[in-house]
Amino acid sequence: MNVETIAIGTELLLGQIVNSNAATIASRLADHGMTHRYQSVVGDNPARMSEVLRIAVARSDAVILTGGIGPTQDDVTREVVAEVAGVELEYDAEYAEAMRARWEARGRSFPESNLQQAYRPKGSVPVPNEKGTAPGFIADVHGCWVAALPGVPAEMIDMLDDTVMPFLREKGGGTAGVVVSRVLRSWGMSEAAVGEALSDLFTSSENPTVAFLASAGVIKIRLTARATDGAEAMSLIEPVEAEVRSRLGDRIFAVDDETIELVIHRMLKERGWTIGTAESATAGLVASRITSVPGSSAVFRGSIGAYAADIKVSVLGVPEEVIAEHGVVSEETALAMARGARDVLGVDVAVAVTGSAGPDPLEVETGTMCIAVVTPANVRTRTFKMPGDRERVRTYTATATLHQVRLALTDAG
Amino acid sequence: MNVETIAIGTELLLGQIVNSNAATIASRLADHGMTHRYQSVVGDNPARMSEVLRIAVARSDAVILTGGIGPTQDDVTREVVAEVAGVELEYDAEYAEAMRARWEARGRSFPESNLQQAYRPKGSVPVPNEKGTAPGFIADVHGCWVAALPGVPAEMIDMLDDTVMPFLREKGGGTAGVVVSRVLRSWGMSEAAVGEALSDLFTSSENPTVAFLASAGVIKIRLTARATDGAEAMSLIEPVEAEVRSRLGDRIFAVDDETIELVIHRMLKERGWTIGTAESATAGLVASRITSVPGSSAVFRGSIGAYAADIKVSVLGVPEEVIAEHGVVSEETALAMARGARDVLGVDVAVAVTGSAGPDPLEVETGTMCIAVVTPANVRTRTFKMPGDRERVRTYTATATLHQVRLALTDAG
Repeated sequence: MNVETIAIGTELLLGQIVNSNAATIASRLADHGMTHRYQSVVGDNPARMSEVLRIAVARSDAVILTGGIGPTQDDVTREVVAEVAGVELEYDAEYAEAMRARWEARGRSFPESNLQQAYRPKGSVPVPNEKGTAPGFIADVHGCWVAALPGVPAEMIDMLDDTVMPFLREKGGGTAGVVVSRVLRSWGMSEAAVGEALSDLFTSSENPTVAFLASAGVIKIRLTARATDGAEAMSLIEPVEAEVRSRLGDRIFAVDDETIELVIHRMLKERGWTIGTAESATAGLVASRITSVPGSSAVFRGSIGAYAADIKVSVLGVPEEVIAEHGVVSEETALAMARGARDVLGVDVAVAVTGSAGPDPLEVETGTMCIAVVTPANVRTRTFKMPGDRERVRTYTATATLHQVRLALTDAG
Repeated sequence: MNVETIAIGTELLLGQIVNSNAATIASRLADHGMTHRYQSVVGDNPARMSEVLRIAVARSDAVILTGGIGPTQDDVTREVVAEVAGVELEYDAEYAEAMRARWEARGRSFPESNLQQAYRPKGSVPVPNEKGTAPGFIADVHGCWVAALPGVPAEMIDMLDDTVMPFLREKGGGTAGVVVSRVLRSWGMSEAAVGEALSDLFTSSENPTVAFLASAGVIKIRLTARATDGAEAMSLIEPVEAEVRSRLGDRIFAVDDETIELVIHRMLKERGWTIGTAESATAGLVASRITSVPGSSAVFRGSIGAYAADIKVSVLGVPEEVIAEHGVVSEETALAMARGARDVLGVDVAVAVTGSAGPDPLEVETGTMCIAVVTPANVRTRTFKMPGDRERVRTYTATATLHQVRLALTDAG
């Protein structure tokens, strides 16, 4: 079943709010194996709403409309759907009385303008709204199911899950069987490099399909299989996953929703080790990411943000000679910072980062970052040149630092 | 000028990401007095992209497309725009070499697939991309200007502001005269409370218009005036700004793009003071925000992330009796942490935060946060109950901590 979505609201076209409903509905459609090819947004204008709805009805099996069903003069979705369907509006007296009774039971005076919400296109099916006053409806518009829901996210989601999705499934929408996705998360290759490494899979693999998405240096490779049941779907995914893993090696660091922060927590817990950070250029960003995980006090103890060079000496105990000989931004200084942090914070694993985030060049080129990890079993140091502006350099550096911890822990056994 | 927007990306139709670009572009169009009537989203599919683009070109004066101009096989925006315009793609050899040189200067091997990005529809104008490799372009498609930009928000916004909006203004788009906006940033009131305090201005003020937008606890009040020149626009804005300031008082902390981080930098520089942090629940997040500002080494020296209670004692020198008597989460402990940080980090101003970010309750209710600021002239302590989940509690706490620094510095004179 091809389903498209239309959001109605001038506030969306003025940029006053973000269309988060579209993403919510989209993910529900994907879960149910329905195809979602088009999204539109149009203002509270009958002529343009009608135009957009006519285009949608002509090319899709179902349309989910959000917004424009409230009690104000702006709210014209009911009228527009009725006009495109070529039917009248009819008044649902029973609904009107129930709405009035609900208000009065809460001791509130009932605004008569609310009664507008008791009209629906003739022949349409009501969609109850437990959280608000505006009921939705599902109308048959020239063979296309048009579901109209409120724009308020909390009301819309319940009505979608409780009524609209079951209705569309019953009408033959969605995949027979199940749709199962598995996401492999990779780090350390550019989007273009992943694209080259897997290009034949993107085009040749049909079940599972292979797609990828880059965000902040992490490339997610999504394998999506359709099958009669979950076990069959996984058996389709497994050989393709094995192929992707053999090509990308330890660049794959997690599956599905596991973040690098969660991976590090898991690895530290498995080993019974604690961690702390010593951070120059990132000044606490790495620590704040490690502690973004609930329950992080089990593995994280503390951090030293040693931004000024003399704090590296006074708090972390980095020997002045190391800085004099190798410079503040060097693997040697990073290693001395990590060793100092291990002692000062009393941790098993310490990670240190020192570098230049720009915009003014320090003693080294902007974007140069030296990272050191010390564990009870090994030591790892690396130098990176991070691209982009200050914000991007810092974000990428924090991510790279977390990956160096992962790789050091892997090597440490 | 009627401008519509089209976002391209299957990930939007699968609900994997929210279309925040649409809201960003929409607010820019509103600022410039351009009319925005339609938004669409379509997947990375040439036939459907072409269909949606043809509809847009027929009804609008300009179209802003985002996404689909990267280096992978999925990226077909260039081809689709050329096809709808009825022109060939042409290869920009100069751009290709510049792109290769940039990669190689960073010591990275250049994936040949990147060269795809050097193609543009014949006759189109390039839109430089300072932050990424994919250049945009503006093409004349049967009398409609079609601007193609990357989907990556940071790249897209710069290209929109630096090239596309000036181009459309020059081509006759937007309001005659100037559109001037002034944004007043407030903190410390809910969206509903700001709405109530200013409700008459939202409805009655027509020039400037008054609108507001909430994000992460900051409410931005935007005054937008249309006038024949900048001086006239400012003279329209000034009395309304004065009225808003008189109602909201020191909740207004900055104007336009000045963030709380920049405000603190400015205030510290004016006083010739340095700052450092001692952070328990936020573990470095406050420090990382202070150092997000370029040139922060002039005012920021370092941070101590004292997550484990014993580090508060061993590194910050918090007396064990203070913790025993008042608890880890108390204004007394926060104050002792701030005093300790002042000594250990050798700074003029220290700020400390200790609290429970959840999900498991510590000795206090989840969301309880105690903040202390010590300056050479005064001391300020406050306790907050932050709403929401762990991530939101941490983000709001970091913001509240920065505002406590601002208020302490204001009081310190």
